[in-house]
Amino acid sequence: MAKQPIITLLTDFGTRDPYVAAMKGAILSKAPYAQIVDITHDVPAHDILAASVALAEAAPCFPPGTLHVVVVDPGVGSDRAILAARFGGQAYLFPDNGVITTVATNQPLEQIVVVQNPAYVPPAESNTFHGRDLFAPLAAMIVNGLMLERLGPMPGTYKMLDIPAPFMDSNVLVGRVIYVDNFGNLVTNIRQADLQRHWTADAMLEIFCVGQRVGVLQSTYSSAPPGMALALINSMGALEVAVNQGRASDKYNAGVNSEVRVLAVGGIALS
Amino acid sequence: MAKQPIITLLTDFGTRDPYVAAMKGAILSKAPYAQIVDITHDVPAHDILAASVALAEAAPCFPPGTLHVVVVDPGVGSDRAILAARFGGQAYLFPDNGVITTVATNQPLEQIVVVQNPAYVPPAESNTFHGRDLFAPLAAMIVNGLMLERLGPMPGTYKMLDIPAPFMDSNVLVGRVIYVDNFGNLVTNIRQADLQRHWTADAMLEIFCVGQRVGVLQSTYSSAPPGMALALINSMGALEVAVNQGRASDKYNAGVNSEVRVLAVGGIALS
Amino acid sequence: MAKQPIITLLTDFGTRDPYVAAMKGAILSKAPYAQIVDITHDVPAHDILAASVALAEAAPCFPPGTLHVVVVDPGVGSDRAILAARFGGQAYLFPDNGVITTVATNQPLEQIVVVQNPAYVPPAESNTFHGRDLFAPLAAMIVNGLMLERLGPMPGTYKMLDIPAPFMDSNVLVGRVIYVDNFGNLVTNIRQADLQRHWTADAMLEIFCVGQRVGVLQSTYSSAPPGMALALINSMGALEVAVNQGRASDKYNAGVNSEVRVLAVGGIALS
Repeated sequence: MAKQPIITLLTDFGTRDPYVAAMKGAILSKAPYAQIVDITHDVPAHDILAASVALAEAAPCFPPGTLHVVVVDPGVGSDRAILAARFGGQAYLFPDNGVITTVATNQPLEQIVVVQNPAYVPPAESNTFHGRDLFAPLAAMIVNGLMLERLGPMPGTYKMLDIPAPFMDSNVLVGRVIYVDNFGNLVTNIRQADLQRHWTADAMLEIFCVGQRVGVLQSTYSSAPPGMALALINSMGALEVAVNQGRASDKYNAGVNSEVRVLAVGGIALS
Repeated sequence: MAKQPIITLLTDFGTRDPYVAAMKGAILSKAPYAQIVDITHDVPAHDILAASVALAEAAPCFPPGTLHVVVVDPGVGSDRAILAARFGGQAYLFPDNGVITTVATNQPLEQIVVVQNPAYVPPAESNTFHGRDLFAPLAAMIVNGLMLERLGPMPGTYKMLDIPAPFMDSNVLVGRVIYVDNFGNLVTNIRQADLQRHWTADAMLEIFCVGQRVGVLQSTYSSAPPGMALALINSMGALEVAVNQGRASDKYNAGVNSEVRVLAVGGIALS
Repeated sequence: MAKQPIITLLTDFGTRDPYVAAMKGAILSKAPYAQIVDITHDVPAHDILAASVALAEAAPCFPPGTLHVVVVDPGVGSDRAILAARFGGQAYLFPDNGVITTVATNQPLEQIVVVQNPAYVPPAESNTFHGRDLFAPLAAMIVNGLMLERLGPMPGTYKMLDIPAPFMDSNVLVGRVIYVDNFGNLVTNIRQADLQRHWTADAMLEIFCVGQRVGVLQSTYSSAPPGMALALINSMGALEVAVNQGRASDKYNAGVNSEVRVLAVGGIALS
């Protein structure tokens, strides 16, 4: 049995309307052997940052050669380009609006093209539903073997979101929340590598969220008693503030952009 | 590799409970090669009109031969019939409650039968869960090759919803909202063909929603600045009132049945 | 075409975040032919009882040999064990927190092991995301043919939830609500077999919910007029209080643990 090509979908369409199914039908009409996997369709409408974080979390878990199709696209119908790319052994099809930022930051770029060859860009039956009328047939063509270089030339540049980087301020590492998950966990822009760059492994690091002390860095959610807060390096390799069996977003009244600080207790910052 | 038969599911079961999975398990128990695709399970409970609109939007995107199974069925356990039909090259299995209306209006009827042959209607293990105990095994038998005519005779008639048609009132085309999507877009019962029937292509059409002027007909969501309303022909071929990156349902405090009017500015209605 | 192995997933991850997709990617990376079916990901966070009821409802509908993977796991990162088992011809992979209770009550146990063999337990890349880093690769290995006995020894015991049993109190059978579904239906711990044990088939049984009379036992939801309450044996074989086309949970202001009583009108309790 030949291996089925995998296509993942990440949209802000929600699952109440028939739009996701319309995309899947359009893909299966041209690539009947494709295996379609949802990343999520419940990204907040038009939230490119949340989509970017979700994409970077899920994509590396898939087999090499998987095609990830992203339709979080507030600029649909405007002149924003559609890009096709390979990062870290996987393929991506996405609007040029910055949604690729987190993947592009974490994975090596192998190839990127602007989708513009009229031989492969299907005539839009509709100006409003690019997911069904452009992204779906393009995805089918790509998993059917079309080389990305046939779709168009390399872009001069492509849009990256301006995600703030954490910075040192008098031995305190200052970062921000960039994603709040369904459990109310606060995912920050501080990576494990940032901590390793600034402190030795034996440093006891203390975390503060919107000015309140969370505690020292832990390794599991159950390090704190139920209902109590903790900070840990999460499964994405990012510093996260959580409440064991509770909601950190509620406890700290925090969300995207809330400040999180790290400092060493009795340790010395390397920089 | 033989092509997998596709079965779509459209229900109002929600995705929180195990009911959809129970149906899928029952299908896969008898048709292990079926590829099951969700249209949606988040139709408002018992909302046959919303299900009908969603079905008609998604179904035509699927490959010929796809079987669409609809279980939005407030009359479950009553004497409403189950119908099996072919419209426009695709198969449908659904309760006779009008949910097929929008498909039947847009696609040519090829075959329709009442499911009643006791040789193929599985004994109900339960009187309450027809999705699992009747629709699922019937769907499996159909994609396994059972001819629809084996299931029962042609019905004398079948139920159609009384969806109001748009009408002309002194050169104004008066329609209604029939579906509100997850983005708050207002989908009306006015089709592109209705506009073409009443006005010449060069007419500048102006749209009003619950008495407020939306503007002239546009071609894309981004024709209006973010936050501003617009009207366009959507991906279903229906007139839709939207707000670029916002919610028209909130802006106009509108929902299903709200009135939408179209008139020509400096044009002449053909009828 | 060889049959695809089926893996079901039941989690409390929700569908908004990329966590479910990360698990699916990890499974497909090691078992590319697996067919993954969602039971649900919208179990209330950390609600082991709801997960247990959902699992027992959906699992028996799947073909023999299906593997059901449950990650409702408030103790993740603590020392709770992971178990693998066979009940009633199907396989289960789950945390030892009682989530298997309803399956274990209804299905015959065939095999159970503690997952601990370091040759098969993947090194945790993360201490926080066992779904992706432990359950997913284990699931892939199991559907790829790994014998459960290779994973570890039989446990001395395994955790079962203390679900209250219904009891007789002066000819009244007293039970409790154990699950409230998306329709507001109240599923109780009273099984059809309990009724058969206590009353003859011709007894007319009357049901009360939180002290209010619901009516005599019916056989379908449409036995009551729209908006009216009724009680019936549901598709799981459990006594359920419902409102035809409405929400019993609202009507009775009832939820998990609310009391439901059954008594015979003019009949005689057998015990």
